[in-house]
Amino acid sequence: MHSPIPDYLQEVLQSCSGDASGHVADYIPELARADPDRRALAVATVDGSAYSIGDDELAFTIQSISKPFAYALAVDDIGLEAVLDKVGVEPSGEAFNELSLEGGTGRPLNPMINAGAIATHQLLDTAHHHAGRHHAEPPAHTAPEHPARTGQVRQRTARALAGLSAFAGRELSIDYAAAQSEYREAHRNFAIAHMLRTYDIITNEPAEAVRGYTDQCAVLVNVSDIARMAATLANNGVHPDTGERVVSARAARQALSVMATCGMYDASGGWLAAIGIPAKSGVSGGIIGVLPGQVGIASFSPRLDSTGNSVQGVEMFRRLSEDMGLHLMSNEQPSNTAVRGIRTITEEGVPISRIRLQGTIRFSGAERVLRSIVEAGSAGRLENRIRIDFSRVESLSGPGARMLGGLLRSLRDNGYDVVVHDPEGLYPYS
Amino acid sequence: MHSPIPDYLQEVLQSCSGDASGHVADYIPELARADPDRRALAVATVDGSAYSIGDDELAFTIQSISKPFAYALAVDDIGLEAVLDKVGVEPSGEAFNELSLEGGTGRPLNPMINAGAIATHQLLDTAHHHAGRHHAEPPAHTAPEHPARTGQVRQRTARALAGLSAFAGRELSIDYAAAQSEYREAHRNFAIAHMLRTYDIITNEPAEAVRGYTDQCAVLVNVSDIARMAATLANNGVHPDTGERVVSARAARQALSVMATCGMYDASGGWLAAIGIPAKSGVSGGIIGVLPGQVGIASFSPRLDSTGNSVQGVEMFRRLSEDMGLHLMSNEQPSNTAVRGIRTITEEGVPISRIRLQGTIRFSGAERVLRSIVEAGSAGRLENRIRIDFSRVESLSGPGARMLGGLLRSLRDNGYDVVVHDPEGLYPYS
Amino acid sequence: MHSPIPDYLQEVLQSCSGDASGHVADYIPELARADPDRRALAVATVDGSAYSIGDDELAFTIQSISKPFAYALAVDDIGLEAVLDKVGVEPSGEAFNELSLEGGTGRPLNPMINAGAIATHQLLDTAHHHAGRHHAEPPAHTAPEHPARTGQVRQRTARALAGLSAFAGRELSIDYAAAQSEYREAHRNFAIAHMLRTYDIITNEPAEAVRGYTDQCAVLVNVSDIARMAATLANNGVHPDTGERVVSARAARQALSVMATCGMYDASGGWLAAIGIPAKSGVSGGIIGVLPGQVGIASFSPRLDSTGNSVQGVEMFRRLSEDMGLHLMSNEQPSNTAVRGIRTITEEGVPISRIRLQGTIRFSGAERVLRSIVEAGSAGRLENRIRIDFSRVESLSGPGARMLGGLLRSLRDNGYDVVVHDPEGLYPYS
Amino acid sequence: MHSPIPDYLQEVLQSCSGDASGHVADYIPELARADPDRRALAVATVDGSAYSIGDDELAFTIQSISKPFAYALAVDDIGLEAVLDKVGVEPSGEAFNELSLEGGTGRPLNPMINAGAIATHQLLDTAHHHAGRHHAEPPAHTAPEHPARTGQVRQRTARALAGLSAFAGRELSIDYAAAQSEYREAHRNFAIAHMLRTYDIITNEPAEAVRGYTDQCAVLVNVSDIARMAATLANNGVHPDTGERVVSARAARQALSVMATCGMYDASGGWLAAIGIPAKSGVSGGIIGVLPGQVGIASFSPRLDSTGNSVQGVEMFRRLSEDMGLHLMSNEQPSNTAVRGIRTITEEGVPISRIRLQGTIRFSGAERVLRSIVEAGSAGRLENRIRIDFSRVESLSGPGARMLGGLLRSLRDNGYDVVVHDPEGLYPYS
Repeated sequence: MHSPIPDYLQEVLQSCSGDASGHVADYIPELARADPDRRALAVATVDGSAYSIGDDELAFTIQSISKPFAYALAVDDIGLEAVLDKVGVEPSGEAFNELSLEGGTGRPLNPMINAGAIATHQLLDTAHHHAGRHHAEPPAHTAPEHPARTGQVRQRTARALAGLSAFAGRELSIDYAAAQSEYREAHRNFAIAHMLRTYDIITNEPAEAVRGYTDQCAVLVNVSDIARMAATLANNGVHPDTGERVVSARAARQALSVMATCGMYDASGGWLAAIGIPAKSGVSGGIIGVLPGQVGIASFSPRLDSTGNSVQGVEMFRRLSEDMGLHLMSNEQPSNTAVRGIRTITEEGVPISRIRLQGTIRFSGAERVLRSIVEAGSAGRLENRIRIDFSRVESLSGPGARMLGGLLRSLRDNGYDVVVHDPEGLYPYS
Repeated sequence: MHSPIPDYLQEVLQSCSGDASGHVADYIPELARADPDRRALAVATVDGSAYSIGDDELAFTIQSISKPFAYALAVDDIGLEAVLDKVGVEPSGEAFNELSLEGGTGRPLNPMINAGAIATHQLLDTAHHHAGRHHAEPPAHTAPEHPARTGQVRQRTARALAGLSAFAGRELSIDYAAAQSEYREAHRNFAIAHMLRTYDIITNEPAEAVRGYTDQCAVLVNVSDIARMAATLANNGVHPDTGERVVSARAARQALSVMATCGMYDASGGWLAAIGIPAKSGVSGGIIGVLPGQVGIASFSPRLDSTGNSVQGVEMFRRLSEDMGLHLMSNEQPSNTAVRGIRTITEEGVPISRIRLQGTIRFSGAERVLRSIVEAGSAGRLENRIRIDFSRVESLSGPGARMLGGLLRSLRDNGYDVVVHDPEGLYPYS
Repeated sequence: MHSPIPDYLQEVLQSCSGDASGHVADYIPELARADPDRRALAVATVDGSAYSIGDDELAFTIQSISKPFAYALAVDDIGLEAVLDKVGVEPSGEAFNELSLEGGTGRPLNPMINAGAIATHQLLDTAHHHAGRHHAEPPAHTAPEHPARTGQVRQRTARALAGLSAFAGRELSIDYAAAQSEYREAHRNFAIAHMLRTYDIITNEPAEAVRGYTDQCAVLVNVSDIARMAATLANNGVHPDTGERVVSARAARQALSVMATCGMYDASGGWLAAIGIPAKSGVSGGIIGVLPGQVGIASFSPRLDSTGNSVQGVEMFRRLSEDMGLHLMSNEQPSNTAVRGIRTITEEGVPISRIRLQGTIRFSGAERVLRSIVEAGSAGRLENRIRIDFSRVESLSGPGARMLGGLLRSLRDNGYDVVVHDPEGLYPYS
Repeated sequence: MHSPIPDYLQEVLQSCSGDASGHVADYIPELARADPDRRALAVATVDGSAYSIGDDELAFTIQSISKPFAYALAVDDIGLEAVLDKVGVEPSGEAFNELSLEGGTGRPLNPMINAGAIATHQLLDTAHHHAGRHHAEPPAHTAPEHPARTGQVRQRTARALAGLSAFAGRELSIDYAAAQSEYREAHRNFAIAHMLRTYDIITNEPAEAVRGYTDQCAVLVNVSDIARMAATLANNGVHPDTGERVVSARAARQALSVMATCGMYDASGGWLAAIGIPAKSGVSGGIIGVLPGQVGIASFSPRLDSTGNSVQGVEMFRRLSEDMGLHLMSNEQPSNTAVRGIRTITEEGVPISRIRLQGTIRFSGAERVLRSIVEAGSAGRLENRIRIDFSRVESLSGPGARMLGGLLRSLRDNGYDVVVHDPEGLYPYS
C-alpha cells in the first residue's frame, strides 16, 4: 500500500500535459537545448514530508526562482532597513518604465524584477562566505572568458550558493558553462547594472554585478530542491528536513510578501486573485509557490508562454489551488471551537471549574476562550477555583498564549484561584 | 470581571493617539467639519464576537471603504468574467498614468482606484434591488439639485446600500447632504466617468455614474459596522452574526485578493510587507483590515497623511499586527499533529488498529495522517481492521476531507476493513 | 493667357488623387456624410494674391485647424504670460500620458492638443465680443438641447467666431447642427474639461468649456478661407487682403512656433523634418501650412489615415514642399549682395564715395554692407564725404536698419560726412 | 574706423555677464576645472564673415554640440532612410521614459538625446576615414586604460573628427585625457549602449560604442569654431570660408529640423517659441544657434542652470534674437516687389514690353512676377514682343526659376515673342 498523494500529483501532472503551446527559452544554448516534453511536480510540507513525480531528478538552472531566496538572505545579512534603502517592495504595474526604477532615486521597484535582483545580489554580505564549505570553483582555464569574476564577486556568489544550498538542504552547484553563455548575452542586465551604478544603488563595477547575478541564476536544481526551498520559506525560514534556520522568520515573511505582490511580474494581481499562492517563476521552466505555514510546491515544464511563464506549470498550480483549496484568501477552515467545555467537577470536596481547551489555539481561538470564560463568569457559573486544561491542545501560537496570559491575570486580579494543567508544556507563562 | 480584549484595544488606541500630524480632508464641508481628535478601534471575529472602543458610535461616510464590498457584490451580480471584462486586478504601480486606465482598452487597472470603483458601481445589477426594503429616498424637494438621480441610478444605489447593509448586518442609510456636496466637487470623478464612457467601459450617462458612486460613498457607518463588514469578508461572505450569506465565497476571496495587492494604492506592496493584512482606507478616516478566516479589524481617526491614509489608523494596524502576529505571511502556527496516536486495541477478540485524529485537519494535516498510516502499513503495524476515530477532531476542511477520502479508498483497495468513528459527522464520505 | 500657378496646383492635386486609402471620420453624422472624393488646394501669399482649385467652395467645419488661430487670439486677449500660465508649449511626445497634462500642475502640454485647445478657448476675452457684428445665434427652438450655452459661453464663441472671421477676411458662420452632434459624442473632451477643472486650469463649468470649444470647431470654412487664414499668420498677423491687423506680430509668431513643434501631434518632428512647413490638420480633412513671410497653403481631402491626418493632403504638402523648395530649414536663397558698388564720384568739385545698396537688406545683408565699408575705410578708399544710396533697395528690415544706423553713427564719429540718398524713405533714422 | 558689430556683440556679452547663478559641470575633473567667469560670443555669416569677442580662443570640449553635426554626417554616410531606421526624429516630451527609447522598437526618439547620439555615432561609415589626414592618435602608453578603442572604434572616431574639422574649417583635435575621465564615469551612457544592443539598434560592443561617442564629445573647439560649424549648417552644408561641401543640403536641412524640435531637450518647444533659433547646447558651456541661410551663432559660458544649459549663453541668445529680429517665425522682411516696372519701349520701330525684375526672387517673388504679367496681358497692355530684364536681379532661387520658366512657356504658347535679358546669367533656362 502507498500514499495516495503521489497518485494525485501524477494525475495533476498528466492532466496538464496536453497543452503543447509555448516555446522553450532560446536566447542561450543551454536553455534552448531543454527537452520541451520533460515535466515534474513536487510538494514539500513544513513538517518534512516531500513528494515528487515526473522528471524530478532533472537538473535545470534556477534562474529567477533564486530571487526571493537571495532577497531573504540579504535581509538577514544587512538588515531590512538597509535593503529597503536600495530596493523597494512595490509592484511595477504596467510596463511603462523600461527599467522599473523609481523616479528620482533610481531604486528598483522591487526585488522580483531583474533590476531589483541585481541590486539585491550586491547586498549579500561576503563575510557570510563559509570558508569551510568547498564549492566547485570556476575552472581555471576559462579565466580569460571570466573577466569580472574577482575576489568580491566570487565571495558574493559563494554566499548566494551556500544560502541557496541551505534552503534546499543539500549542496548545490553552479553550471558555469550556462552562466558564461548567459553573461555573454546579458545586454539588458548590463544596461540595468550601469543605470543602477548611475544612481549609486550599486557601487561596484557593473560587470561584476552582472557576473555575480548571472552565476546565482545558474545554480543547478531539480524540482524537489525548489519545493523544499519553498517549504523552508513556508516554515518560517527553518528547513523542514535539516532543521537548519536558513533565514530569520522576519526575512522569510518579507520574501513571501514580495512574492505575493510582485512575484509574477505584471500579472501578479491576476495570479494572486486566481491562484492565491505567492509564487515565482523562472525562464528555465520552473515555478514555485508557497502557502505560509503549510507547503512549498514546485512545477517544471520548459514551454513558456509569451510572458515567460511555464504554460503547463501555470496549469498545474491552477489545478492544485482549485482541488486543494490552497487559496491564501479562501477560508475553508471552519471556525475553531477552542473550548471543549466548561464543567464543574469536585476534587477533594472542592468545586472546580474545569475548562478544557482543545486543538490549535491562535488569535481567534484565544479570543473565543476569553469570551467563553468571561460569559461564564458574568453568569455566575465559575467556581472560585479554576483549572485550565491544555491536555487536548495540540498547539498554541504566540499571540494565542499572550491573550490567554492576559486572561489569567485578569481572572487572578478578580480573585479567582487559577491552575493550569498543561502536561505538554504548551503554555509559556504559568 | 470582563474580557481583557477591550483593555488591550484601549491600550493600542491610547498608544497611537499621540501623533497629531496629518489633516482632516477638507474638500467638502461634511468632511472638513470632522473633529480631528475622535478615534475608535473595533475587532469582529468570524464566529461573531465583536469588540469596539473609543468613539465607536460616531457615524462617518464610508467613502473608499465601500469599494471592496461593491466589487464583491458586482462579482456575484454579473459573474467574475463579466466584471474582469470591465475592471482589471493589477496594481497601478507608480502614478505614471493620470487615470490608471489600461492602455488600449481603457479598462481601469483595478477596482480599488476611483476609475475602477466607478466602473464597478455601474456593474451592480439593478434586478437585485429588494423591493421589500425601504431605504430613505433622497428628499423630494432637493430634486433640482439632483439632476442625475434617475430611476436606474436610484436602483443601483439601492442595490449598493442594501448590499453594504447586509455586510454590516444592519440597515445603513445615506447622508444625502454629504453626497450632494461631494457630487458638486467631483471634477476628477466626472473626468474619469467621461473617459470610461469613451472606451465603452460604462455605457450610461457619466453624470449618472458619478451620482451613483457618490451616493455609495456617502453611506453612513461607524467603526463597528465596518469591522463587521470586514469580518463578513473574512468569514467567506457569511455575516458572523446574522448568518446571512451576503456574497459567495468566490466573491469574498476575489475582493480580498484585490485588497491585498491594490488596497493601499501606490503603497500596497509596502503595506502588505510591513503589516501583512489586506486592507482598505477611506478619506473620512477609516481603515479596515481582513485576516481571512479569522477577523475583521477597523480603525477610525480622521487626520490623514499626505497619501490620504489615516495617520493614527495606520499606527493602530501596525501595532496590532506586531503584537498579535497577524501578518498573513507569518507562520507562527506550529505544525498540526493531526494524528494523536495509532494503537492496537482488541474488541470482541478482534484486533483493531485505532487511529485517533485530532484538532483541525486541513490539507497539511490530512497529508500527515496519510503519511502516518502509510508508514504504519509498510511497517506491518496495521491490523486488518482499522477504525479511524474523528471524535477529537474539531474541524475538517474540504481539501482535508477529500484527501482522507482518497486514503480510505486506497486502504479498502488494499483489502483493509476500514470503519469510521465520527460522532459529530465531520467526515462527509463515509 | 493665364497664370501657370493654377495649372501647377491642378497638377499637384491630380497627382495626389490616386490614393484612395483612409476613411472619412465617422464619429458624428455630419462628418460621416462627407464625400470622400472631394478635394481642393489653395495658396495665398502675404501680398494678397490667392489661388484655389478643385472643390474650393465646398464648406466644411474647421475643427482642429481653429486651434492655432484661437491661441493667437488668446495671446493678444490676455497676454502671453497669462496664457503660458495655463497652457504649455512643449510637444507631448509619445502618448504616454492619456490626457497630455503636465505632471503636478495639470497644465496641458501645448495648445495643439485637445486639452490645450479647450483651455485656450476659455482664455478668450469676452470683452472683445464686437457688439456691432451680428452673427447667427443658435436657433431659439433648440434651447433644450443646448443646456450649456449660457451668456459667457456665447460671448466666448462670438469672440472666437469674430476672430476666425477676421483671419479669413470674411464673415464665417457656425454649423450648429454639427456642433450639437459633436457635443453629444464629446466624451473625451468632457473628461478633459473636468480634469482641467480639477487643476483649476479652467474655472467655469466643464460643460460650458466643451460647448464653447465644440462651437469653435464647427465654424464653416472652405479651402480658400483657411489658406487666407494661414497667410495672415505668415504675414505677421495682418490680413493680406483686408489689411486688418488681426493679431499682433508677437501672437502670430507664437502660434507659428507652436505649430512647428506640436502641430502634427506625435509626428510633429517627422513632419517638420520631411515637409518643413509649420502645419495643422483637422479631422474634417483640411490641412494648413504656413511659410513665415511668404505663403499660406491649404489642402482638403476627407480621407484620413490612422493618425487622423488627410491622406491626400499630406501628399499634396509633400509634393509642394519638394517642388517649390518650401522647407523652412532649406537655404536655397543665394546670399544677398547688398552692396552694388562703392565708387568715387565728383560733384561740384567735391569727391564723394557713393555706396549703392540694393535688394532686400536684412541682418546678414546689413552685415555685408558694414563689412564692405569698413574694409574700404581701412584701405583708405573712402572719401571724407560719403553718400549712401538706397534707391535700388527694395526693402529694409528693422534689424538691418538698426545695424546700418550703427554704421552711420560710427562713420560720423570717425569724422566722415555721411549723406543718405533714400528717395523711397526706407531708412528710418536719417 | 572699425565695424560696429564687435561693439554690439561686446555689449551683449557684457549685459549678460551679471548673472553668476548656475554651476560648472563637475562630474569629471576636466569640466570641473573650468573657470566659471570665462565667456565668449561669436557670429559667422553664410558668406564668410565672422566675428568673435571675449574668451574666443579658449578651447573646450565640444560635448553635445557635436550631435547635430555627427547626425548630418551619418545621413550622408549611409542615407537618410537607413539612419531613420535606427534613430527617430520626435521630441522626447516630458521625461516619462528613463532612456527615451521608442516602445517596442527600442529606437532612440531622436539624435539630440544621448541614446540617439550614441546610436548615430555607430552609423558613421568607417570607409570615410581619410587615410591622408593624420590626426593625433591616442598615446600608445595609455593602452591598458583604453580597452575598447579597437580598429573600428578608431576609424569611426577618425571619421567624426575629420567631419567636425571640415565643419569648423580647420583641423581639430581630441582631448584624450578628458575623454578618458568621461569614459570612466559614463555609467548612464553604458546603460544606454547596452540597452541599444538589446534592441539591435547597435550591433557592436557597447563599450566600443561608448568609447567612440566619448571621444567624439572630447573634440576641442573654441567659440569661433562652433560658430563656423553652425554657419556651415546655415549655408546648406558648404563651409562659408573654405567652400568645402561638408554635407549635402539634404543632410544639413535634416540636422537643422531636428535641432528645431529636439535641440534643447524637454524645453525645445519653449526655446523655439521664445528665441526662435534652432539650437544645441553642450555641458561644457557652449550653445550654438543656426538661422538657415543667414548666420551661425555661438556663445560660451560654463555656468549651467539646472537643465544643463549655460545660464549666460541662454541670455545672450535671448538678447540677440530680440535685438536682431532673428526669430525663425518672425516676418520682419517686408514683401518683395520683384517687378520694378512694365513699360513699353520702342526699339528699331518695334514696340517692346520691357519687364524689369529686381532683388532676390524666390517662390513668392516669382508668384508676384507671374501675377503682374498675367494681369498686364489680360488688360491688353502687353506688346507682342516681351523683354524680361534680369539685370537688377541679385539672385534667383531654384523654385523661383522654375516658376518663371513656366511663365515663359505659357507666354510663348500664347504667341508672345519673349526675350530674356540676363547679363549675369541668373536665369537657367533661356
